[in-house]
Amino acid sequence: MANGTDRPPARRPGGRSARVRARILAATAELVARDGIAGFRYEEVAESAGVHKTSVYRNWPDREELVVEALLRYAEDLASVADTGDIHRDLVEFLLALAGGLETPFGRTLEQAIYHTDESPAVRQAVARILDQRVAATRRRVDAAVDRGELPPVDSAFLGEMISGPAHLIVNRGMRPFTRVDAERIVGVVLAGLRATAPHA
Amino acid sequence: MANGTDRPPARRPGGRSARVRARILAATAELVARDGIAGFRYEEVAESAGVHKTSVYRNWPDREELVVEALLRYAEDLASVADTGDIHRDLVEFLLALAGGLETPFGRTLEQAIYHTDESPAVRQAVARILDQRVAATRRRVDAAVDRGELPPVDSAFLGEMISGPAHLIVNRGMRPFTRVDAERIVGVVLAGLRATAPHA
Repeated sequence: MANGTDRPPARRPGGRSARVRARILAATAELVARDGIAGFRYEEVAESAGVHKTSVYRNWPDREELVVEALLRYAEDLASVADTGDIHRDLVEFLLALAGGLETPFGRTLEQAIYHTDESPAVRQAVARILDQRVAATRRRVDAAVDRGELPPVDSAFLGEMISGPAHLIVNRGMRPFTRVDAERIVGVVLAGLRATAPHA
Repeated sequence: MANGTDRPPARRPGGRSARVRARILAATAELVARDGIAGFRYEEVAESAGVHKTSVYRNWPDREELVVEALLRYAEDLASVADTGDIHRDLVEFLLALAGGLETPFGRTLEQAIYHTDESPAVRQAVARILDQRVAATRRRVDAAVDRGELPPVDSAFLGEMISGPAHLIVNRGMRPFTRVDAERIVGVVLAGLRATAPHA
C-alpha cells in the first residue's frame, strides 16, 4: 500500500497530468513570445506541447488565464536571491540568472508584455506581480547585508534598479552576450558607488 | 530678386513641403507606436497629419522607408550631450532628455522595434544606427572629461550602459515618473563607483 507502484500513472501526484500542464505552459510562453498575446493559437500550443488541443481548451478555456499562468510559472525561478554571506557574489549570481532568464522565450514574453500597455488588466497584474516578487527578493537580500554591516544603509529598491537596469539593456539590445565579466563590473561599480555616497560612509 | 517674396510658397526651402513631411513622419511614429510597424495604415497617417493620402504614397511608396525615416528623424534630437565642463551635470541633463524621449510616441516606437527581432533588416539597421549615435555622443563627452582629468580613465561605453540602463528600466516599467532626483542619484552613484574602482584612483 505504501509502495503504490500498482496505481495507474495518471493518479501519481506530479505525474502525467502535471507534466502535460508544464509542457502546455512552456509551449504557450514560446508561442506568445513569437506571435504576441493576441496572436498565438491554441492549435499550435497543442501541437508544440505534443497534446490534443482539447487538453488545452479543457484546462484553460480562457486564453488570458493561460497566458497569465505561463508568465507566473516562469517567474517562480527568478524570484530568489541566494544568501552566502557575500553580497557582491550573490548579486552577481542573481544578475547572471536574470540575464539568462531574459534570453529565454519566457523572458521575452514577459518583456514584451511590459511594453504592451494596452494589454488586459489580468496580464498587466501578472507582470506587475512578477516584477514585485523579483524586487522583493533583491530587497530582502540587500536588507540582510545592511543588517550585518556588510553595506551602509541603502535604498534596496534603488540598488535593484541600478544593477538590473544595465543587465536588461545589454540583453534586450542583443548587441553582445551578457557575461560574468559584465555582472562583476556592474555589481562592483554600484556597490562601490553606494558605499562612497552613503551618508554614514 | 534677392528678396524673393514673389516666389510661390512651395519653393521656399524648409517651407510647406518640409512641414508636410515633418507632420507625416510625426504621425507615422505615433501610429507605429500604437499599431506596430506591420499594423499602421497610410490612410490614418494621412488623416492624422492632415494631408491627402497621395502625399504619403508619393513621398514614401515603400512603408519600410517611411518607418525608418520616422525613427531617424526622432533620433537626431537625442544624439547629443552638452559640454558645460561639469560631467555630472551634463550626464544628468542627458538622462532627463533620454527619459523624456522614451516617453514620447517616437521613443516607444524605437523601444518596440528593439524588441521585435523579426523586424526587417532596414528597420533593425535604423535602430542600430540610432543607438550607435547615442552611445557615440555619450562616449565623446565622457572621453573629454577623462582628458581634462575630471574622471579617471573609464570605459565610456560601460558608463553609458550604467546610467541609461536604470533610466530605461524606470521609464519602460511605467511604475513611477522618472525625475531629476532619479537622474542625480544614478549619475552620482555611477561616477562615485567608477572613481572608487578605477585602477589609477
